[in-house]
Amino acid sequence: MENRDKSLATRVVDAMHGNDPFSQWLGIERVEDAPGRSVLRMTVRPEMCNGFGIAHGGITFSFADSAFAFASNSHGRKSVSIETSISHTVAVHPGDVLTAVAEEEHLSNKLANYRVTVTNQEGKVVALFKGIVYRTGKEWEV
Amino acid sequence: MENRDKSLATRVVDAMHGNDPFSQWLGIERVEDAPGRSVLRMTVRPEMCNGFGIAHGGITFSFADSAFAFASNSHGRKSVSIETSISHTVAVHPGDVLTAVAEEEHLSNKLANYRVTVTNQEGKVVALFKGIVYRTGKEWEV
Amino acid sequence: MENRDKSLATRVVDAMHGNDPFSQWLGIERVEDAPGRSVLRMTVRPEMCNGFGIAHGGITFSFADSAFAFASNSHGRKSVSIETSISHTVAVHPGDVLTAVAEEEHLSNKLANYRVTVTNQEGKVVALFKGIVYRTGKEWEV
Amino acid sequence: MENRDKSLATRVVDAMHGNDPFSQWLGIERVEDAPGRSVLRMTVRPEMCNGFGIAHGGITFSFADSAFAFASNSHGRKSVSIETSISHTVAVHPGDVLTAVAEEEHLSNKLANYRVTVTNQEGKVVALFKGIVYRTGKEWEV
Repeated sequence: MENRDKSLATRVVDAMHGNDPFSQWLGIERVEDAPGRSVLRMTVRPEMCNGFGIAHGGITFSFADSAFAFASNSHGRKSVSIETSISHTVAVHPGDVLTAVAEEEHLSNKLANYRVTVTNQEGKVVALFKGIVYRTGKEWEV
Repeated sequence: MENRDKSLATRVVDAMHGNDPFSQWLGIERVEDAPGRSVLRMTVRPEMCNGFGIAHGGITFSFADSAFAFASNSHGRKSVSIETSISHTVAVHPGDVLTAVAEEEHLSNKLANYRVTVTNQEGKVVALFKGIVYRTGKEWEV
Repeated sequence: MENRDKSLATRVVDAMHGNDPFSQWLGIERVEDAPGRSVLRMTVRPEMCNGFGIAHGGITFSFADSAFAFASNSHGRKSVSIETSISHTVAVHPGDVLTAVAEEEHLSNKLANYRVTVTNQEGKVVALFKGIVYRTGKEWEV
Repeated sequence: MENRDKSLATRVVDAMHGNDPFSQWLGIERVEDAPGRSVLRMTVRPEMCNGFGIAHGGITFSFADSAFAFASNSHGRKSVSIETSISHTVAVHPGDVLTAVAEEEHLSNKLANYRVTVTNQEGKVVALFKGIVYRTGKEWEV
């Protein structure tokens, strides 16, 4: 598919994800790019685990944070994280396949709010994440 | 130094950090282990960066989250994260040397609150993190 | 209606709301009591405003926090707030009629997560609130 | 004291507090106004309590939120709350005398971060609050 046939959301996320070494280390796959929305998938590996033998809290955070970044930049305006929070509800193990769904809860000129729900392969919610961005005046040139 | 000569905080963090592949991938070094407190250091590498050419938000989160986990388990009681939040204040670049200082703000029987400040090599605050743990009834056997 | 004909959620919220002077000062009306859910309504009065001539942030917080308390106690187990956060998205004025919808996002034995959305009479989201409770071992005797 | 002899922080907080009916209902007294800092005091009354016979969570939030608003506007630039969170650590009772200390943790051109600690008359921490503001381009004319 040629670039001009892709949606703005997809072109922006192509630009962000193509140059994102850490998202690639995480093994993030894109399931859906849309305005104000992103769906991602990844599989947890042993090197992502902590001293309890379960995924380090930073892994689910990073995964949710990527979905948040893609969703918030998808309108074409460069947007930076102001504040994020996460609550880990169920332990994540090596081999688990996680899905993150980022949804826009509010959009204004300067600020926007997102909620990201992370579930495992059984559909259980493993983390609840939310974040706010500051929308800069700069556009993605894509 | 033999194990019995170490403080409880150090023995707990030895047990946690020695078995923590992700903290090791991050390159976390321990500067101080103390009751209710942890100081850590790490150097940011290019593979930790995002599509903006700066450290992925998940890196500073993971680093702060490790200091939070060490500080909250240091009393010897196994403690699990309930809720954490982070605000990124200054961009972090490859080569930056980060220090995280986790401090206990409140300790009760079941719950405890921590604040983690992350600074760079110039002493600038790059992230403000806070977290709450649930203190289980299980002790670390160390 | 006699007490025994009411649902557990309604009996618990009767007990909480009947003895809650501050919720009464706020003028909170109950629209729906259900397991893990609460819908409330209130009208903003001039004495609830701040120096900007708009509702003090504490008013929308208090309103959302009441819906959160009702929803989290509705299962019959006494539950106490651990951590809450709020983002104010649109200014609230005297005369505005607010609706809070509290929904359960995760329920486990000791902890539960709730999201509360506050809208005005035009259906605009004025605040996004979330909270976590610790579920004690004590039951409401209602 | 004439207005021109007061500090900018005091003049701004005079303007905010003098027109703030809800802070007045709360009975908030100002102990200190300073750049990036505010110290307030209040006494809890029975009508501020909830169904548990203790102060409604919205009361301590409102009190901390006022200190946050005063501290963040004290530099003379109109600043609005983006996101706040609170953790209640110890129950508050009627008659308790609370002190809120708001401190600036980070200040940039568009955003600033504050922490507010609320203690009771025995010096116990009853709530830990934090907040972020968006600093508008408008100055207080005081």
